[in-house]
Amino acid sequence: MNIKKYLPILKWLPNYRLATFNQDLLAAMIVTVMLVPQSLAYAMLAGLPPEVGLYASIAPLLIYTVFGTSSALSVGPVAVIALMTMTTAGNIVSPEGEAYLTTVILLTFMSGIMLTLMGLFRLGFLTNFLSHPVISGFITASAVIIAVSQFKHLLGVSVSGHSLPGLLVALAQALPEMNLTTLLMGSGTLLFLYATRRWLGPLLTGLGVSRAIAGSVGRLAPILAVLVTTWLTAQFALIERGVAIVGEVPAGLPPLALPSTDVSLWQQLWVGALLISIVGFVESVSVGQTLAAKRRERIDPDQELIGLGCANLGSAVSTGMPVTGGFSRSVVNFDAGARTPAAGALTALGILVVILWLTPLLRTLPIATLAATIIIAVLSLIDVHAIKHTWRYSKADFSAMLLTVVITLLQGVEAGILAGVGLSLALHIYRTSRPHTAVVGRVAGSEHFRNIERHTVETSANLLIMRVDESLYFANARYLEDQIQTLVSQRPKLEHLVISCQAVNLIDASALDSLESINLRLMDTGIKFHLAEVKGPVMDRLDKVGFPQRLSGEIFISTFAAWQHLKAASKNHHDDLEVSEI
Amino acid sequence: MNIKKYLPILKWLPNYRLATFNQDLLAAMIVTVMLVPQSLAYAMLAGLPPEVGLYASIAPLLIYTVFGTSSALSVGPVAVIALMTMTTAGNIVSPEGEAYLTTVILLTFMSGIMLTLMGLFRLGFLTNFLSHPVISGFITASAVIIAVSQFKHLLGVSVSGHSLPGLLVALAQALPEMNLTTLLMGSGTLLFLYATRRWLGPLLTGLGVSRAIAGSVGRLAPILAVLVTTWLTAQFALIERGVAIVGEVPAGLPPLALPSTDVSLWQQLWVGALLISIVGFVESVSVGQTLAAKRRERIDPDQELIGLGCANLGSAVSTGMPVTGGFSRSVVNFDAGARTPAAGALTALGILVVILWLTPLLRTLPIATLAATIIIAVLSLIDVHAIKHTWRYSKADFSAMLLTVVITLLQGVEAGILAGVGLSLALHIYRTSRPHTAVVGRVAGSEHFRNIERHTVETSANLLIMRVDESLYFANARYLEDQIQTLVSQRPKLEHLVISCQAVNLIDASALDSLESINLRLMDTGIKFHLAEVKGPVMDRLDKVGFPQRLSGEIFISTFAAWQHLKAASKNHHDDLEVSEI
Repeated sequence: MNIKKYLPILKWLPNYRLATFNQDLLAAMIVTVMLVPQSLAYAMLAGLPPEVGLYASIAPLLIYTVFGTSSALSVGPVAVIALMTMTTAGNIVSPEGEAYLTTVILLTFMSGIMLTLMGLFRLGFLTNFLSHPVISGFITASAVIIAVSQFKHLLGVSVSGHSLPGLLVALAQALPEMNLTTLLMGSGTLLFLYATRRWLGPLLTGLGVSRAIAGSVGRLAPILAVLVTTWLTAQFALIERGVAIVGEVPAGLPPLALPSTDVSLWQQLWVGALLISIVGFVESVSVGQTLAAKRRERIDPDQELIGLGCANLGSAVSTGMPVTGGFSRSVVNFDAGARTPAAGALTALGILVVILWLTPLLRTLPIATLAATIIIAVLSLIDVHAIKHTWRYSKADFSAMLLTVVITLLQGVEAGILAGVGLSLALHIYRTSRPHTAVVGRVAGSEHFRNIERHTVETSANLLIMRVDESLYFANARYLEDQIQTLVSQRPKLEHLVISCQAVNLIDASALDSLESINLRLMDTGIKFHLAEVKGPVMDRLDKVGFPQRLSGEIFISTFAAWQHLKAASKNHHDDLEVSEI
Repeated sequence: MNIKKYLPILKWLPNYRLATFNQDLLAAMIVTVMLVPQSLAYAMLAGLPPEVGLYASIAPLLIYTVFGTSSALSVGPVAVIALMTMTTAGNIVSPEGEAYLTTVILLTFMSGIMLTLMGLFRLGFLTNFLSHPVISGFITASAVIIAVSQFKHLLGVSVSGHSLPGLLVALAQALPEMNLTTLLMGSGTLLFLYATRRWLGPLLTGLGVSRAIAGSVGRLAPILAVLVTTWLTAQFALIERGVAIVGEVPAGLPPLALPSTDVSLWQQLWVGALLISIVGFVESVSVGQTLAAKRRERIDPDQELIGLGCANLGSAVSTGMPVTGGFSRSVVNFDAGARTPAAGALTALGILVVILWLTPLLRTLPIATLAATIIIAVLSLIDVHAIKHTWRYSKADFSAMLLTVVITLLQGVEAGILAGVGLSLALHIYRTSRPHTAVVGRVAGSEHFRNIERHTVETSANLLIMRVDESLYFANARYLEDQIQTLVSQRPKLEHLVISCQAVNLIDASALDSLESINLRLMDTGIKFHLAEVKGPVMDRLDKVGFPQRLSGEIFISTFAAWQHLKAASKNHHDDLEVSEI
């Protein structure tokens, strides 16, 4: 049972049938054709030799087949993670040097360890620190940076920079050195890809072709662009005209690599590795969940962490780069009919065939073509609709998104995510730091109590009943003290204060301290402090530290019981029933 | 009205009477006598010349009288803030050098600006990031470091270090060089202070003296120790035996100072300044609130930020150090009968008299005496009871407290607070990331719905009603998706899913995205998605982005309405009422 949890392959492999194999094989062939140029492109985006992208598309896929729980997820290099790899490793060593690949391998290894540990210790909740607006803002800004960073390849010039202003300035300065042949080929490819993506689908469906087939034809466009420009470059010796090409890709199995044991390098990389792990996991699990839901299946997020973690460990020791489940490839895999994780293993075999025997075909593939495919791929990540939607829905969430976008563009990806997470947390603390509270009174003749500002209810000068609509914890503990002090200072005749706790799911140690302070302060002023409708688990904890014994008043089962008891107790003094009205 | 809010002095000064003045004057005289040795001691603790402590006890008190809202708060140097000043400024420049005082003045100035801005922009909620266990752990660990750091003065040796292990090692190494006369005087004072604090009060009350008077006599012990040891040192020329003394304190008004405009210094100090601001404010406001409550008054936390901010700005420009409301002095001020903030201004005049004419009396005050008073003062901050109490109440809160203590002792005060805040936030995210949810069924014959695992209720195979007991936000959005996927994958006959939202006070943009995903995924599997009992403000937001129109199902006013409508709709198919029982 437990073994099957940690080795999900044991659940499906024993029942694996030839029919399923045929479906998986077809999907794997289609994904392989898509993955070859993507692997090369994302390795280039990460500042790595092209073969590293192919290496990262073999071992990780085989390993995910054993440990993964999604039947359609296509693991491998993806654009945003490639950019994060570039900025994290590039901040420490120059991408031109020997040490760069070593640094990326260590980064991959560390990310693998972190993901695996998060899975084993069920720390997946850590990914919850990333709110959707922060992720969305981060991905949009990353896409802009990625797209702009690829313009150098369209122009055939050499510039570098991690932030948008730096990139733009460097591009402008390099403009005079641009290569016209490269520009023509690159912008031609870009236009072709844009046009097919924008107009081919609607055109074909307009001609009566089914939507599924029209979509598949559209996805063939990048492959076609690769084939045509590679052939053109070889045929017309465009290299002599200055067109940059992928060049010799060494054939053969991925070489084994051992991660560096340089402690200072580990210290420099850990924040980056953590962010890569979390962003990669979030992207992967949301694709996985969407696809699983379509078949009424489910994925196990903790096991997914282990699967992706082991995939990255495998990538690191086979000279690869950080990997995760990619959105577009996974959708293609699903649509093409992948039924089990075996489709991933078959894709890995396809890439293995390419790297063993077909690398000569890739030699004259122009860099500009890869750049054009990257630009078109990441433009779909820029989600203007999500930005507008968030603006309409919540200004607070929008501000977190905007900050993430701006800081990512100006200061880079790490700073962008950290600023967004910080602001999300601050906003959450702010929102819950002033919990909704209401002074309530009795609906005449009933056992119901309602807000005195919204309903005609009975109140009493010697008794104040306050309802708190939020759990009490460190962010709102002090506010409660302050608010009670305000209410009490306005009511000279007050003898009893009751807090009605039906919405309080938790009272943490800070809030307990506040309740103790409130109790002591009210005692000093001769007011008794009571609670009502305390939930079972909350009551258990209060009992553990003897709070009910220190409380000057009582804990009532219901607000009505408090009303009856405390009204009766003060009846002798004066008849003080008042009816508030709005 | 608004002017009175920002200048609270206008509220009480017009009605100021001679009787009140007499009460304030008496309190001011008592506090002044207490404040003189404290100012010298905390300046020493912060690594500053003794007169800086006195300077910080003049302008800030006058300014707080104008801007402050607490009638009993005694503003000035305090122990924990002095330690934080020492470690923050001492990390950048050596306390021996000229630049140290400049750095402390800038730190005070920055803290003043931060507090004032937090007050003007109502950012007081930022202090809520500090949970009580973190503050309590931080103060306990600081007290240990302060006490240990003073042992060098008792031994008459010179050592330095910000962390506990460093201090202990340095002290052990310096032991052979200790001065016996200093040790005798220092430990004698320490024993005397400890004994009076521990046994004098009970002894006097045992003899029939009232508790208030016994307490006042106890507070005179430090003054007595100062007078006696100063006299002894002068009388027997103990300086020649190596007893370190305060020395010449320059007489005269505080010199004006302009804060440094060195940008790199600002960058190095801002985290420290922020932490000093927040810790100082939290200490001050909790004392202020406790004392205000005793008189059924209240303080305005936002205005307190402005008051303390301006006090620190005043301290900075008059060559002072960071100040805040101190616990013990404020209690003495209150007990001695201070009625208005004028008592603070009168205390400032008292200190002014001391610095203009009485400084020669302070010359032979031994440093060891000040060290002994500091040690006794901070030992009362070590709150073993709070640690035990937190352990019993909540292991999660205890772990945040323990981490804060350990990191503060080992790595210093900044790292300690930041680690504690980080862990508190992580624990809060963890606690709310798995909100309590329950599948509910109808209590037969009623309109009530209860957890199917705890009650005998009616359920239906085609209808699932889930109650969520928490606001939906980024930390728990993904968990909800996952949980619904699990529930749905177990129920093949399901046609309708209802989420009952009576406890949902907020749906943020992340949670909205999750609801949209859940809606789409359920649509893919032919299940309709409904909501029930959505609160007004939450509904308004959902309407703003047109969510109800995209929802495959409906939004019902009550869970019962959903039950009636959806049961009726499926009645034709099959009679599938089931009764669950536990």
